[in-house]
Amino acid sequence: MPAKPVIAISAGDPAGIGPEITAKALADPSVAASAQFIVFGLPDPARPSTAGPTADGGRASFDAVMRAIEACKRPRGSPGAADAMVTAPVSKEAWHAAGIDLPGHTELLAREFASPDSGMLFVGPSLRVLLATIHVPLTSVPALITRARIASCIDLAHRACLGLGVARPRIAVAGLNPHAGERGLFGREDLDSIAPAIAEARARGLDVSGPWPGDVVFLQAVEGRHDLVIAMYHDQGLIPMKLLDRRRTVNMTAGLTWQGRTVVRTSPAHGTAFDIAGTSTADPASMVEAIRLAVRLAGAS
Amino acid sequence: MPAKPVIAISAGDPAGIGPEITAKALADPSVAASAQFIVFGLPDPARPSTAGPTADGGRASFDAVMRAIEACKRPRGSPGAADAMVTAPVSKEAWHAAGIDLPGHTELLAREFASPDSGMLFVGPSLRVLLATIHVPLTSVPALITRARIASCIDLAHRACLGLGVARPRIAVAGLNPHAGERGLFGREDLDSIAPAIAEARARGLDVSGPWPGDVVFLQAVEGRHDLVIAMYHDQGLIPMKLLDRRRTVNMTAGLTWQGRTVVRTSPAHGTAFDIAGTSTADPASMVEAIRLAVRLAGAS
Repeated sequence: MPAKPVIAISAGDPAGIGPEITAKALADPSVAASAQFIVFGLPDPARPSTAGPTADGGRASFDAVMRAIEACKRPRGSPGAADAMVTAPVSKEAWHAAGIDLPGHTELLAREFASPDSGMLFVGPSLRVLLATIHVPLTSVPALITRARIASCIDLAHRACLGLGVARPRIAVAGLNPHAGERGLFGREDLDSIAPAIAEARARGLDVSGPWPGDVVFLQAVEGRHDLVIAMYHDQGLIPMKLLDRRRTVNMTAGLTWQGRTVVRTSPAHGTAFDIAGTSTADPASMVEAIRLAVRLAGAS
Repeated sequence: MPAKPVIAISAGDPAGIGPEITAKALADPSVAASAQFIVFGLPDPARPSTAGPTADGGRASFDAVMRAIEACKRPRGSPGAADAMVTAPVSKEAWHAAGIDLPGHTELLAREFASPDSGMLFVGPSLRVLLATIHVPLTSVPALITRARIASCIDLAHRACLGLGVARPRIAVAGLNPHAGERGLFGREDLDSIAPAIAEARARGLDVSGPWPGDVVFLQAVEGRHDLVIAMYHDQGLIPMKLLDRRRTVNMTAGLTWQGRTVVRTSPAHGTAFDIAGTSTADPASMVEAIRLAVRLAGAS
């Protein structure tokens, strides 16, 4: 029997629900028995009555993530090394207050692991969704939907599906515009950028289809027609994901590598929930799923 | 007992499923008994084997809608007058081929009934969703999300809810950007245009909240926290609507008036489905719901 994988957990913003869901998840005997865990966070999170995004919280949660990254960079099996990392929620506002100008984990991880073609993937019981763009204003999205970016997303999606155990991935690409542009009547990006990237990937033998209308493709995926949907922007992908798989959705970073090996990083798909922090009512379900997926992928990577 | 309302039905593109779902819906005894019907369409739709968007189909379906509009403009109870209209699906491409440069019914109805502040509303068992923008390229959306437009949508949503029998409407407004802009980090429209329109409506006594993150607000609505969600653009509203209420979603035009009285117009929420037309497999469920809602609202208007 192989040794249990070592999972590094960053406990998230100390004023949010991260420490609570981490503790609750690790109190689950089947979770606790599945791996060895290293938890990075404040030993006794100070929780002022005015809990919320603060520079202190931003700095603490950032440091925890950086320590988990460091553990994942160490050679496997060496002291302090981790085989995968799970990140509890941070506050982008708190990071901003601490002078950390990154929109979130995904962007930090891409930078720290020198993996610019990594991406934000959501995995749930009903859907797998990869985002082509993430934390940018909607007005910036259309210019980012280039043929090169979509081609890169298709490759990433294909590899991520293989990693998740889908033997012959069927990838669907959502359109950018209403009705995927209705053949050019409502915008040209679907015809000019998305469709050529799909055609080129098909020519390379990948099973890719689209661009599908956004209000059609997720239904098709739920019905089993696609293994993964590439969404063009945050809400297009997250609205169906959270509606269908809310409690059990896991956010993972696809395409992270370090010195030639895959780096596994998962996270619950919700935020810090400052409003309920400290009330012991936080639901650890997404954190539990995140840990389970990290353990499974750490064994495979 | 009051006289049965007169419902005008335009049968949609003759090469699509419109004629079939119209016939199937009217064959339902409870539907047939609920009103008197006038159906506008080709008496025997010619369906070439190469069915699809054609100029002939576009012209025929446009003429049918225009005749239904005319029937709704006539004084109530006069010969040929209708109390409400139900429109089967048309093809925007076929309209385009016929030289009709309108993206769809909603825009045509706004023009013909001189009701520029009308809007596209979706009604289903789980959700009610009003679209702030409809058939425009995504790149055009942010500039259209003005304080004035959101204020107008809030008023429209409030009145539409009252018309649908919601005594004290609770309206939610979705944000435009990811996380509703995360307090300005991912775009300013949520702070600069949407939030002031909400504040102003609240000051007038309306129960309006937001801007909520797009991936949160529909969940809240499903849980009963909101009576109607105003979505900023097509896919933001239609993705959750179709995922949750697909077969039973009705599209209606809110805020149509003619000579001081409300004009009721409903429609199934799907398209022409050229690919299955002529196979007798089309599902009339959404058409049945559209007729039922028109009958109910015609009685109330």
